[in-house]
Amino acid sequence: MTSLSEERVQEIKDSFTSQGLMQTYEATLTHIALGHVEIAMPHRPAITQQHGFFHGGVMGALADVACGYAALSTVAPGHAGLTAEYKINLLSPADGDTLIAVGHVIKAGKTLIVAQAEVWIEKQGARKQCAVMLMTLCVVKHLGNL
Amino acid sequence: MTSLSEERVQEIKDSFTSQGLMQTYEATLTHIALGHVEIAMPHRPAITQQHGFFHGGVMGALADVACGYAALSTVAPGHAGLTAEYKINLLSPADGDTLIAVGHVIKAGKTLIVAQAEVWIEKQGARKQCAVMLMTLCVVKHLGNL
Amino acid sequence: MTSLSEERVQEIKDSFTSQGLMQTYEATLTHIALGHVEIAMPHRPAITQQHGFFHGGVMGALADVACGYAALSTVAPGHAGLTAEYKINLLSPADGDTLIAVGHVIKAGKTLIVAQAEVWIEKQGARKQCAVMLMTLCVVKHLGNL
Amino acid sequence: MTSLSEERVQEIKDSFTSQGLMQTYEATLTHIALGHVEIAMPHRPAITQQHGFFHGGVMGALADVACGYAALSTVAPGHAGLTAEYKINLLSPADGDTLIAVGHVIKAGKTLIVAQAEVWIEKQGARKQCAVMLMTLCVVKHLGNL
Repeated sequence: MTSLSEERVQEIKDSFTSQGLMQTYEATLTHIALGHVEIAMPHRPAITQQHGFFHGGVMGALADVACGYAALSTVAPGHAGLTAEYKINLLSPADGDTLIAVGHVIKAGKTLIVAQAEVWIEKQGARKQCAVMLMTLCVVKHLGNL
Repeated sequence: MTSLSEERVQEIKDSFTSQGLMQTYEATLTHIALGHVEIAMPHRPAITQQHGFFHGGVMGALADVACGYAALSTVAPGHAGLTAEYKINLLSPADGDTLIAVGHVIKAGKTLIVAQAEVWIEKQGARKQCAVMLMTLCVVKHLGNL
Repeated sequence: MTSLSEERVQEIKDSFTSQGLMQTYEATLTHIALGHVEIAMPHRPAITQQHGFFHGGVMGALADVACGYAALSTVAPGHAGLTAEYKINLLSPADGDTLIAVGHVIKAGKTLIVAQAEVWIEKQGARKQCAVMLMTLCVVKHLGNL
Repeated sequence: MTSLSEERVQEIKDSFTSQGLMQTYEATLTHIALGHVEIAMPHRPAITQQHGFFHGGVMGALADVACGYAALSTVAPGHAGLTAEYKINLLSPADGDTLIAVGHVIKAGKTLIVAQAEVWIEKQGARKQCAVMLMTLCVVKHLGNL
């Protein structure tokens, strides 16, 4: 890995913005570095499970996107990373105001990338881990702004 | 397992309806049987990734809910199933009109339930599998309409 | 996929025989077909956990090998499949005489293969499922008899 | 969590010794602390895959045991931890002299424990990570020296 280019940062921001789901979630990309991405989203009724907490599927989607862009930050120009699979353990109910996913690359191989994400819930200023994800991505030739 | 009670069917329907995320997704519970649940949702820009297909996080959430209610259909009255973890393999891009998740219970234990889901994408009448999920749930005493 | 060549069958048998661990386990390759492999091994004290049953790690290894060779049976001549990751759910203690792993390919892509395995335990003629595995493999150019 | 009792340390050592598979692997328990266990094993032909490296199934089994005893170190007296499921990502071939698994508890709940393990390979004094595992265990009433 070398440093993260301005072009790649812009590419990640543009790709993030073009995801309808991230707009629906009102999610924002709060940090990008080489192999490291953070995303945050506010609590709203539209993203809840039956108890009014953040839905587990939302925790999964946010961690998914954080791992995906952390991986994308490490690939060569003109390449992209496709999610092959992930596993998530839900550690605590996401009862709070803001959900935060922090994704980082564990191994950036030529063909496969392994990334991990921690999901945190913030409630009145206190932060608690509520999930951990392990993801495998496949490096592919760039097709559009994947 | 014995047969599925009317009360439990109603409980699953009510719980599903109370999930803000399922409303946001415009998802519907299309089939419930003992240890078996099917859910469908239409394509809309609000749930897309950067190519306009169903977002991987949406596929994960739909499979998550299908496994969860398949598990809930098998527990004793007054008990619920909490998702402990899941793993999903994305097999194909979800390029189509309707996303369908079919969840079924593999093993219904006293403390743990293992469920599997297949996710299918329908496009102009043709159906293709786009993901497979394996989930572990923990049986808990009922708290409200979990 | 086309049919399984004699060369590929022999290659799988030779590769299996060259695994020291499969010899240590006294495991045998009981069936090979296109995208489908079965392996069996007898109970012995050398492969037990602390209760005298088959060790969970042995169940994992047998399922791993069944998925791996099921995948290998589907790739082009001169290519191989490397295990990227797997997830296994242990459903029941493997209390019995013979452990059997049945691996089959769910999707054979150009770069990635997804395979599933069921692990069964036989005790006095009765067979019970004791684990299920979901695996991702990466197709690579052949290096020796991988 | 409070500190780790002498009784529990002895119980973990006795349980480890009673596993036939760990003897077959010539594995040793090199460190035990509250929520943290390390295991090491030497390279021998009996535990190889077809290239002569440590078999992936051996990496899985060692990580499995490291997570299991890390979890056991955190449960109340008279309780045990049963492996429900795990996922492992293989990062590099385990080409070396000694395989080391380091397991630690991420969350010790009343019913479920989540643990993670890193697997390292040592070759001529250099250490490289070759796998990462995420495991879910279920806390159960003690049955013998589980």
